[in-house]
Order: sequence, then structure tokens, then C-alpha cells
Amino acid sequence: MDPINTLTEIFRHFPGIGPRQAKRFVYYLLNQNPDSLKKLTEQILALKKNIRQCADCFRYFNNSYASPNNLCRICQDSSRDESSLMLVERDIDLEAVEKAGSYRGYYFVLGGNIPILDKEPRKKIRENDLLKLIGQKGSRLQELIIATSANAEGDNTADYLKSLLAEPAQKYHFKISLLGRGLSTGSELEYADPETIKNALNNRHSQN
Amino acid sequence: MDPINTLTEIFRHFPGIGPRQAKRFVYYLLNQNPDSLKKLTEQILALKKNIRQCADCFRYFNNSYASPNNLCRICQDSSRDESSLMLVERDIDLEAVEKAGSYRGYYFVLGGNIPILDKEPRKKIRENDLLKLIGQKGSRLQELIIATSANAEGDNTADYLKSLLAEPAQKYHFKISLLGRGLSTGSELEYADPETIKNALNNRHSQN
Amino acid sequence: MDPINTLTEIFRHFPGIGPRQAKRFVYYLLNQNPDSLKKLTEQILALKKNIRQCADCFRYFNNSYASPNNLCRICQDSSRDESSLMLVERDIDLEAVEKAGSYRGYYFVLGGNIPILDKEPRKKIRENDLLKLIGQKGSRLQELIIATSANAEGDNTADYLKSLLAEPAQKYHFKISLLGRGLSTGSELEYADPETIKNALNNRHSQN
Amino acid sequence: MDPINTLTEIFRHFPGIGPRQAKRFVYYLLNQNPDSLKKLTEQILALKKNIRQCADCFRYFNNSYASPNNLCRICQDSSRDESSLMLVERDIDLEAVEKAGSYRGYYFVLGGNIPILDKEPRKKIRENDLLKLIGQKGSRLQELIIATSANAEGDNTADYLKSLLAEPAQKYHFKISLLGRGLSTGSELEYADPETIKNALNNRHSQN
Repeated sequence: MDPINTLTEIFRHFPGIGPRQAKRFVYYLLNQNPDSLKKLTEQILALKKNIRQCADCFRYFNNSYASPNNLCRICQDSSRDESSLMLVERDIDLEAVEKAGSYRGYYFVLGGNIPILDKEPRKKIRENDLLKLIGQKGSRLQELIIATSANAEGDNTADYLKSLLAEPAQKYHFKISLLGRGLSTGSELEYADPETIKNALNNRHSQN
Repeated sequence: MDPINTLTEIFRHFPGIGPRQAKRFVYYLLNQNPDSLKKLTEQILALKKNIRQCADCFRYFNNSYASPNNLCRICQDSSRDESSLMLVERDIDLEAVEKAGSYRGYYFVLGGNIPILDKEPRKKIRENDLLKLIGQKGSRLQELIIATSANAEGDNTADYLKSLLAEPAQKYHFKISLLGRGLSTGSELEYADPETIKNALNNRHSQN
Repeated sequence: MDPINTLTEIFRHFPGIGPRQAKRFVYYLLNQNPDSLKKLTEQILALKKNIRQCADCFRYFNNSYASPNNLCRICQDSSRDESSLMLVERDIDLEAVEKAGSYRGYYFVLGGNIPILDKEPRKKIRENDLLKLIGQKGSRLQELIIATSANAEGDNTADYLKSLLAEPAQKYHFKISLLGRGLSTGSELEYADPETIKNALNNRHSQN
Repeated sequence: MDPINTLTEIFRHFPGIGPRQAKRFVYYLLNQNPDSLKKLTEQILALKKNIRQCADCFRYFNNSYASPNNLCRICQDSSRDESSLMLVERDIDLEAVEKAGSYRGYYFVLGGNIPILDKEPRKKIRENDLLKLIGQKGSRLQELIIATSANAEGDNTADYLKSLLAEPAQKYHFKISLLGRGLSTGSELEYADPETIKNALNNRHSQN
């Protein structure tokens, strides 16, 4: 096959990219000079070389920040709160929580979520790695926060994790909590779905 | 002025309607038969005749459901929970909460919200009517829920109401609560704003 | 039925209005003072009283501009070019052409268009009124421009009109023309559909 | 800099890609296996090796289709109409015209367009290559079609080309034409801009 079409086909699998934009990417690259293309391919190959996964939280991070024991900057930061562990679906969720700036505990990146009725849930998330981490850190853990998305897959993943972690939670005496549901910033009651209104009511908090 | 333009101008003030659609409304009406137009105008005038405002909650409702003391169907329903009063901005918010189906207390419709730095907040909401209702029902009230929108105006209105109602709350011993903030149904962490993430964290709830 | 619901139902039939916005219209009206509502209903009823249809082109216009013979301002303007007649679907199309400012002939408003496979095309447009007008003005007519929309219904209407008017065109020696098809302002070749590209090619024009 | 950030920065310059999606691309790649990444980089590097520019029309095409004299499949197809040459801005425009299927002449890809008031128009398009091609093919040319976009840059480019090519057109006796402007497929008169209505009127065509 033609490299234009082959490359278009590869770009089509990039997240959020349709066939037309995939082709525009190829023409964009065709108009770059050889140096730019070389830099792009070098950086792509550098990903696997220079980026590694944290031995604790499994997020991707730059080699150069690695501690001798292969921990990312967050996991090697002993000033954080070791009594709290947050489970997120993907690296980018971890970044969003860090940017929000109010969480000071540690993380674990599940690597995905579990679709409803999925036959092999264990293959969708890093189950063994999670259990191993809890085995190491469980004694100091007081709270494990399941921070999956507020959609069907996220809820299903949270349900799976709750039953998976019921025993460790009992053994190590940590509580399992879920992120609060309710009105998100900017939302108006009129346009809120019934589920969100129910959650907002259940999670109402006293002011006096 | 030409009735086409006059009417276009009136329709332009309808919520969400621009000049082009306002004009389309007029041409739509021009193509209706006289009977349809008569029915439309009759129904518009019937609004003020057949619709009244509930003496307690101030929402609009059909005359024919009115109790002798001018109460709407909700306010005359003695099976509801009189220990709880929810303040909403508009009738349509009340309808959204009723549709969600989990609230069993009474309502009060504020009639609007208070923009930030507004010079005359008392004119934006039914302040006197609210204070009067609390004067009547306060002794049985245990919780007052401020259910304004999760935006700047809604928050400002909530702040105003909290200080307005601080004294009645103390006198009648009811608590003031706000709707829970957090992830709304369907939202993903990656796309959530920092404010929503903070709220979701603060409002997390234990599962075991 | 409740006037709120009755009126919501009526507004739902306004062009481009869904059930939610229809209800917002009703609440908007409920919050208007009686004088505003009276003005609105008066203006709606004034439409039929003060607006009439031009005896020639059938567009709606203000009574006060009417000539003794019931012609609108355009049709009574003898400085316009009587050799040209443009057929448009609706009043609002006529306004768009007038606003573009380059057409100086007369108009006829068809009152709608003919959907494909429609069983009674004669009921969809003002066929008899058009034939009568051509009977009166045909001898001075040199060109009849069919200015229907560039979509399936518009094309179908144009086809119907071409065969309807073939005989009068021969009798009165006027030509029938269609609006030019091609790239509309702002369009890029990359995103143009094949039909538009074909038209743009067929209608290309020499520059030297 | 971190390869995640470096690569995010590179992807940000891809057409239509913002910082958030650029980052998602990087995480997408991080989750690919080494073989997929290798294939991607190989295909990117293959572009420059296996794709060349046609010596006549300057579009990119696959090596394997190249004639000995470096012509693309269209330019080496002697069954096409050599009396007609179409100038397009980019490769993707050429593809759109080919897909429309009604043009049988040859092409020349300008490589871009000329913004209004641009100081160095000659650097924006392949001016010398175009003049050279016309020098070779001019004697058989009867029509040169300027098929730039129907926007400000496209019009400006067309104006520049018309004056640039005025002399060759006289010398070789070919006419210069522009794509037809008017209603594009699907457009309704009501929503058409004045410019498009004027063009549609000017380019109207007789049906009898």
C-alpha cells in the first residue's frame, strides 16, 4: 500500500481523529522539511527509551526524574500523605487531579476501565500491580479513593474495585471512598439530569 | 411601526430568540388561519386568568387545582415533609427537582437570582415573601436547602440568602444546607474543571 | 388541559422550537405584566387586520403601504424592471434577495415548496395565482427566474415549475432561468461536496 | 525537555490539534507496543523516501507509480484533456476535484494561497514552477482554470494569478477562467449571504 494511505490509516487510530483529518496530517508531514520529520520520529522512539512507568503508580514519566528504585516524582516525594491512595483510570486523569491542587496523597493508575458485562475485567486494569502495591503500603493506608469517571464504565470499574478490595480494606483497616457526585461547576438545575439532582440532594451539606 | 416589525421585536425578547428566528415566528403566524391565532391569543390571556401564583411557594399553577387558600398541589399536599424547605430560582427548576423524584419536602420559588455586585439584591428575589413564609412555617422547619445554580449568580444568591436567613435559622433552629457539588453524571475526570475536582474530593464518601 | 401545557403545545409548533424552550416561553410570559401580554396579543391579532397579501406577488405587507389596487411597495414601484419575474418559496427569501440589492425585477412568492414524490403538488404552491399573474404580465416578460432552494425540495419544485411554465414561456416568449450553482462565499474546495464542485466547474466563467 | 512535552509540542502544530488533544496523542503512543511505534516512525520516514513530487503538477505521489520522467499517474495519463489546466491550492483540493469526477484536464498544485496584503506573494505559491510548466505546455493549452477557495485568500490568490498570467495567456492564446460562484448544494436562500445571492443571480442560466 501507498505510504500516504498507510500513514493515514495509522493516524485514523489516534484518539478523536477521522479519515479526513488523518489525511491532512499526512499532507502536513509531506510539507515538513526532513529535519522536522527526523525530530518527530526520534521523539516518538525516545518515548519508549526515555519514558518509563513508575514502579509504584504506573504512570509514565521521564527517565531523568527517576529515583534509583524507579519511582516517579510524586511517588518519591516523601512529603506527601502516605495515608491516602487515589485510583485513577489514566495518566491524564492523574494530571487533572494534580492541576486541581488540593490532593496531597499518592496515586495508582489503573490503565483503563472495565466496560459493563466485560468478560475479562482483570485484563482491563492493572489488578495484580494494584494488589501488590496495597500489600506493600497497606499498613500505613487509611483511605483509598476510587476516582473513576462518573459514567457507566467508571461506575462498573468502581464496583469491581470495591469487591476486589473489600478484603484488603478489612485486613489493613483502610476505608474506601468514592468521589462526590453532584452539580458540577456551571451547571443549572433546569438542565441537570435526574441522577445528578438526586446526587446533589443526597450530598447536600449543612452551612451552619 | 409595521405590525410585522413590532411583533418581531416582541418575539426577540423571548428567551433564546434572535432577530432572524423572531421574524420566522411572525411569518409562521401570518400563515396560520384566524382560528389558530385566536386560540393562541386566548391562551396567552388565559395565563393571567387561569394561572395563579401559589400563596406559599409562589410558583405558577392552574386555577382549577387551587385550594380555598390559594395553594398549589404541592403546597396543599399534607403528606409531604414539612420539616424541609427548598429554595429554587425559577419554576422550571422546581419542575426539574420534582421530576428527579427524590425530594419530598416543600419549595419556595425565589423568582430569579442575584448577579454579582448587584445594587438592589432585594428586588431580584422574593425576599419579603420568603421571610413571611419562614415566619409561618419556621417552627416546624428542620432544614432549608438553598438549591441555586452552580454558577456565579447562583453562588452569589446562596451567599446572600445565607446571611439573610442566619437569624431566622437561629431563632427557629433549622439548618441551612447547599446542594452537593461534584462530578455530574457522565463527566470524566480528564475534562472536569479544577473547581469540580476539588468539590468531588471534598465531598467524597466512604463505602465501607 | 392546563393553560401552561396548552400554550407550551402551541409554542412547540413554532419553527425551530422544542418542548423545553416552548415551556420557557410560557414561564417568560407568566412573568410579564398584563400590559405586555395585552400588547402581544393585540399585535398578533393586528397581523391579520393590518397585514394583507399583495394581489400580485402574494407577500405579506403592511396595510398602510397598500395602493388602491392592493399592491405591496415593490409591486407598485413602476421603476422596477417589468421584464423580469423571480419566483421564491417564502417571504423571507424575497427579503434576502432584496437585501442583497442587485435584483431590480418583480417577485412572486410561491408560499412553499414541493417535497419529492408529493401527491398533490398543486396544493403546496400558489399555482393558480402564478398562472393568473403570468396571464396578466406575460406579454412584457422576458425572463422568469426560479429561485428555489438548492436542496431536494427546491430542485423538485423547480422541475415542477419548469414543466408547468413551458407552455406560457413559449406563448409569451420569455426564458426560464435558474439561480447559479457553485461555490458559495467562504467555501473551500477541500470541503465542497462533489455536486457543488461539478456545478462550480460547469459554471466557470472566463476572465479574459 | 521531557519527551512527553516535546512530542506534545510537536503534535500541537498538526492541523486542527490543540494542547489537550496533542497530549492525548502522546499517551496513546505510550500505550502502543514497540512494533506499532516502529511502524509509525518507519512510515513517516518512508514519506520522504517513497513519496515524491510530480515534476509537472507538484502533487505528492507514490514512487511506485512514477514514470521515468517523474510524473504522477494523472500527469502521465495521455488520455486526459491537455487543453485544460486547473490550478489548485493544495493536494487535498486536487483530490476533491478528482473525486467529483467531472474534470478531465490536468492540474497544477500551487502549494498554498496568498494572504491579503502579503509582502512576498511569490514565496507563497510555486510561481516559477507554474510559469515553467506553462512555457512547456502553453501551446496546446486552451483554458486555465483558477480553482482557488471562495474566500479572501483564495480571491486574492486568483487576482494575483490573473495578472501574473495575463501575458502568457495572450502569448499562447488560452483563456483564464474562474470556478462558478452561487448557491452550494443544500443552501437555502434565506440563509445565503448577500454576496452568494448576487453571484447566484449573475450566474443564473437559462433552461429553455
